[in-house]
Amino acid sequence: MMTIEKILSKIPIELCQPGDYEIWAERFISPEVMAYISGGSGSEISLKRNRQAFEKISLLHRALIDCTKGTTQTDILKQQLRHPVLLAPVAAQKLVHPEGEVATAQAANAMEAGMILSTLSSTLLETVAEHTEATKWFQLYFQPDKHATLNLVQRAEQAGYQAIVVTLDTAIQTLSPRAQKLGFTLPQHAQPINLAKKISTQPTILTPTQSVIFQGMMTEAPLIEDIAWLQAQTRLPIIVKGVMHSKDIEQLLNLNIDGIIVSNHGGRALDGTPASLTLLPTIRRQVGEDFLLLLDGGIRSGYDAFKAIALGADAVCVGRLQIYALAVGGAKGVAHLLKMLRDELELCMALTGCSTLNDIDRGTLFTEERT
Amino acid sequence: MMTIEKILSKIPIELCQPGDYEIWAERFISPEVMAYISGGSGSEISLKRNRQAFEKISLLHRALIDCTKGTTQTDILKQQLRHPVLLAPVAAQKLVHPEGEVATAQAANAMEAGMILSTLSSTLLETVAEHTEATKWFQLYFQPDKHATLNLVQRAEQAGYQAIVVTLDTAIQTLSPRAQKLGFTLPQHAQPINLAKKISTQPTILTPTQSVIFQGMMTEAPLIEDIAWLQAQTRLPIIVKGVMHSKDIEQLLNLNIDGIIVSNHGGRALDGTPASLTLLPTIRRQVGEDFLLLLDGGIRSGYDAFKAIALGADAVCVGRLQIYALAVGGAKGVAHLLKMLRDELELCMALTGCSTLNDIDRGTLFTEERT
Amino acid sequence: MMTIEKILSKIPIELCQPGDYEIWAERFISPEVMAYISGGSGSEISLKRNRQAFEKISLLHRALIDCTKGTTQTDILKQQLRHPVLLAPVAAQKLVHPEGEVATAQAANAMEAGMILSTLSSTLLETVAEHTEATKWFQLYFQPDKHATLNLVQRAEQAGYQAIVVTLDTAIQTLSPRAQKLGFTLPQHAQPINLAKKISTQPTILTPTQSVIFQGMMTEAPLIEDIAWLQAQTRLPIIVKGVMHSKDIEQLLNLNIDGIIVSNHGGRALDGTPASLTLLPTIRRQVGEDFLLLLDGGIRSGYDAFKAIALGADAVCVGRLQIYALAVGGAKGVAHLLKMLRDELELCMALTGCSTLNDIDRGTLFTEERT
Amino acid sequence: MMTIEKILSKIPIELCQPGDYEIWAERFISPEVMAYISGGSGSEISLKRNRQAFEKISLLHRALIDCTKGTTQTDILKQQLRHPVLLAPVAAQKLVHPEGEVATAQAANAMEAGMILSTLSSTLLETVAEHTEATKWFQLYFQPDKHATLNLVQRAEQAGYQAIVVTLDTAIQTLSPRAQKLGFTLPQHAQPINLAKKISTQPTILTPTQSVIFQGMMTEAPLIEDIAWLQAQTRLPIIVKGVMHSKDIEQLLNLNIDGIIVSNHGGRALDGTPASLTLLPTIRRQVGEDFLLLLDGGIRSGYDAFKAIALGADAVCVGRLQIYALAVGGAKGVAHLLKMLRDELELCMALTGCSTLNDIDRGTLFTEERT
Repeated sequence: MMTIEKILSKIPIELCQPGDYEIWAERFISPEVMAYISGGSGSEISLKRNRQAFEKISLLHRALIDCTKGTTQTDILKQQLRHPVLLAPVAAQKLVHPEGEVATAQAANAMEAGMILSTLSSTLLETVAEHTEATKWFQLYFQPDKHATLNLVQRAEQAGYQAIVVTLDTAIQTLSPRAQKLGFTLPQHAQPINLAKKISTQPTILTPTQSVIFQGMMTEAPLIEDIAWLQAQTRLPIIVKGVMHSKDIEQLLNLNIDGIIVSNHGGRALDGTPASLTLLPTIRRQVGEDFLLLLDGGIRSGYDAFKAIALGADAVCVGRLQIYALAVGGAKGVAHLLKMLRDELELCMALTGCSTLNDIDRGTLFTEERT
Repeated sequence: MMTIEKILSKIPIELCQPGDYEIWAERFISPEVMAYISGGSGSEISLKRNRQAFEKISLLHRALIDCTKGTTQTDILKQQLRHPVLLAPVAAQKLVHPEGEVATAQAANAMEAGMILSTLSSTLLETVAEHTEATKWFQLYFQPDKHATLNLVQRAEQAGYQAIVVTLDTAIQTLSPRAQKLGFTLPQHAQPINLAKKISTQPTILTPTQSVIFQGMMTEAPLIEDIAWLQAQTRLPIIVKGVMHSKDIEQLLNLNIDGIIVSNHGGRALDGTPASLTLLPTIRRQVGEDFLLLLDGGIRSGYDAFKAIALGADAVCVGRLQIYALAVGGAKGVAHLLKMLRDELELCMALTGCSTLNDIDRGTLFTEERT
Repeated sequence: MMTIEKILSKIPIELCQPGDYEIWAERFISPEVMAYISGGSGSEISLKRNRQAFEKISLLHRALIDCTKGTTQTDILKQQLRHPVLLAPVAAQKLVHPEGEVATAQAANAMEAGMILSTLSSTLLETVAEHTEATKWFQLYFQPDKHATLNLVQRAEQAGYQAIVVTLDTAIQTLSPRAQKLGFTLPQHAQPINLAKKISTQPTILTPTQSVIFQGMMTEAPLIEDIAWLQAQTRLPIIVKGVMHSKDIEQLLNLNIDGIIVSNHGGRALDGTPASLTLLPTIRRQVGEDFLLLLDGGIRSGYDAFKAIALGADAVCVGRLQIYALAVGGAKGVAHLLKMLRDELELCMALTGCSTLNDIDRGTLFTEERT
Repeated sequence: MMTIEKILSKIPIELCQPGDYEIWAERFISPEVMAYISGGSGSEISLKRNRQAFEKISLLHRALIDCTKGTTQTDILKQQLRHPVLLAPVAAQKLVHPEGEVATAQAANAMEAGMILSTLSSTLLETVAEHTEATKWFQLYFQPDKHATLNLVQRAEQAGYQAIVVTLDTAIQTLSPRAQKLGFTLPQHAQPINLAKKISTQPTILTPTQSVIFQGMMTEAPLIEDIAWLQAQTRLPIIVKGVMHSKDIEQLLNLNIDGIIVSNHGGRALDGTPASLTLLPTIRRQVGEDFLLLLDGGIRSGYDAFKAIALGADAVCVGRLQIYALAVGGAKGVAHLLKMLRDELELCMALTGCSTLNDIDRGTLFTEERT
């Protein structure tokens, strides 16, 4: 098992910020794969907004507070996490590194970071589970047939995953235009090995009298009764990823869902949505102070994690960054990334006078007066 | 007659978004023609605003709604349309493709899309009408002499056009500076064949004591009594394109006009006007909920169509996109374009929980709170 | 004397917008001279703002109004002007064309445009006056000694100038950094021939105990009593150019000054001031509806002239454009420029339903609602 | 000793604005050193904001006021300053010029400018003090051990420094990513010679169970009792640099601290803070009209100095500009820089009608009306 010391040895000096992995990744993976990972849907409006939202937030430096007892520790779903940065569920990680999700799990374990494994993992979920003792959750896409869905959930339970994360924003999922234009297809070795059959990335052929969307894809989209069904099937807490409308959230709160990940799927689902950070304050207000709320989308630094927490998140997820680091350095890369994120978060906390995550509130932010 | 299958075969993979046709068009038409089509008047302020207005609007994703009965169908002027995207009237289509307006009509027919034929068509209006069974309207420029105007209207009626679209924003129409600078002139084969005599694109020579504008061009601009006169001449509904001022609209409402197309002529008329999208909410408020309102200007995707509908439009028109697709692929290109626009619109509807166009309202949009 | 026909013959097709003269001017004058003309003071913040202010304003197209009696005619100081676009006072015009101010006067005469001759003219003010029968005003810089100032005013009166324009914003005037860096100096043939002695462009040498600004240049800046003195010396109306602060304006109104040109000296005086267009509405409110108010700064088109008038100006002045056109085409260039500006203004008027300058008010502009 | 005349001789014509020294500095120092000086922390958000804040402020030109008694003189802490521009404390000045802080002190002396010497000076503080008779303050970083801190304070007192400037915003200080990526390390000749032992720029090694930030660096951060302790040790006034939160300021006001320098450490401390200029008005309101408030961060001209004073500063500090000028021209460069800054400030004062620094208030600024 890796030690932090080993992880940090021989990291090139140029990799000194989390975002540096994005630049380096281009040397390690092909343009098609880079397009697949980095691209967004439509005109990439949501993708851009995810970043811009963070740049607009202002932090207020604070001195004269004793932070020597500071810690980033937090309890989420009764599990203790060393820090509030989780690895978001990302499909097909063998696409960028031969060890794929196993390497990611090793990094999560070494850094005691939470990991969310995708339904579309290119490694058996049981194998991944063996490589990390830290918090691990299983991300679930509802399958066309309920037995297949149930089978996934039961396997996740047995393998020791501690929560189910249901993704609701990709009833319709297509390749980003960037990836389409470069002819990207998912190679054999990165197929979703946990599913009974392969998921096709080919566009469905339309006939003039049918809508491939309404009468096709939407027939498989889970509804509120499906979430209720899922609750009945598992003892695990259920977290929903990818809801932003107050009416969706209201329905989920009525079901006593266990948490929400505020997300626009990294700008890969409906293009034109606000940044997930922009949505956060409104959603926090709706769900109340004690409800579990995570943020995903646009995180490129520990500064961003801090801002998300100040605006209402309990923790954040990193998706693309994780994959860039995996591509560049495998387990070591991901671990180093997590370390940098935590260091930057600690730096923000220390310099804003926050000893715990609870101290990170609106008072740490600055809003310009209108003169 | 084309089938959708045939249309979609051999479409290059790079043409996967409506806007891609703009990029490709440059390979198919000369710089002068490209300048003529893409350019705007003045400093192209309105042209740019048309695009920027769409980029500022935010959509709210919605899950947990059953959309399996979804449809883009709509009734406009008692005619049923398969989808709310119409082909805007664009002059001189033989400029970019030898089959010109006939190819456009074939695409409209194949995709069951509404088509608005320009007075300045390079094909006889009767010939165009033969090629589409879908909704077709005739766009009318008032001619210097009433008989000529009446003749056009009567021919349109007889040829089966179902509405007259009177354009009011081009009392003064000049080539865009971009096109002027490249020396663009309309070639012989693209002249307005439906008119008695050719329309000159030469600048009129001014004498010191006259204004070519006030005492020249403005003498031919239609006034409210001309619209009333037109109503008396035809049994067809009359839609007015290119009015934005509340006082103009008030006069037209007093005449019980049948509909309005909110437009700034694609940034080709008075430069400095707001984006047509920006004008839409105010105009919808003035005309009331049930009045027929279409939007033209800046539509580059089905996402844009969705946004326009959410802000008050019943349907949208595409002008430049249509011509780019025609230049690249003739009837096939235009049909493919229409298909992509409809698919994107359906995607937006499905992911915002809208089963019908009526469901697309302000509640599907996000407005950031001021903190 | 030039006829309009002659002016317009052989104008290259690329010169179809007023701003085109700026691009062309670079081929006719040296980089140092171009820097001298185009540059602004400091960091050129005011220079940029002058342009940006116009781009933010939105016009509302208007149809259905009879404009066939339209005219741009206006009365200013009891003189009739054919159109509300004047040639701003610009120094040293022989710098860019051997005929200098004489060519400018010929163009003004041909186009019946008002002209304001600079104190720093490179041609004798009497000679210039001989070349135009149109409105002509004399711009006055107070001279270090009152007799010299009076001498200029009396010569202007005798030569037939119809108003004195006192410039107040250049108590401290230095070359723009752009011009300084290219080593620009005013050549012999472009010196201010109307002054007794040459004006130096060399920086004054400071000693440690003196301020070249406070105890140097500011000793020559005119105060309110100097304006009063000037009123007593001449029967001509006095217009003040370059005041923007309400307290300055209040003092001038108390003196019954005849008019104000709102200006930031084209971004060549105090850097960091607002665009003159931005200042206009506030100043119009202070001076009242009937007071003569002109705008100078940033005008690059007839659209801009329209916007300025809509926001409160009675007329506008063009400075840099005039010099670019002079450099490119001498009298013919300036006349062509004036013609294009007038044509664009007429186009804006016709398309916003304004038959007279008085019709151009706030109702022709659009202000976006806050949703 | 240098005379102004000698300083100004042979200054290249291209160096005509303070900011020009930044461009020139690149020719005099290596890319690593340039990165070290110019870089900011994190994503350089604060760094950019420092500049943008100045560009948004608008000045109002004022004529008709007698400024011939104008002066930039001011009293700060009962010392008279010729002008309100001070040299900010910058570490390791021998990095860019062999004479380092001695040259800076010579320039300060020649221009009668205040100088703040950094704890991390590469020259003995006693040596620096010998070279300037003008106002000089000593910037203090609290040392890990109180005796070392006290020793520095006592040496500063004895050497004639007139105030202690305690910096509070760099409890955690790392090299900027830009400098890290180029492998910058502080060379031997630029080490902090006034400290007992060298300060390491190596990143501290983390073990999995410790936070190098909370349990490491933060243990050395001074708290309010340390400031109180310092007050008891010295008769010198104490100014605090780098506090922005109202609660920090409140604690310092309770201690009757003598002044505050509003600063975000030039964007080198916590990234994401507002521009120091943006913070200024709120802080001025909190501390009251008579409290000593200086601004540091983003000053690139005398215009900027004016804007800061108008928004509440009593004086401003220049950091990076000072080092660029030192790199380019040694003492002569810094003196020339100070002269240009003062000239520009005087120009702004004269053209806004301000004869003294007290006259520079909000009334000299323009705020656009919302229409």
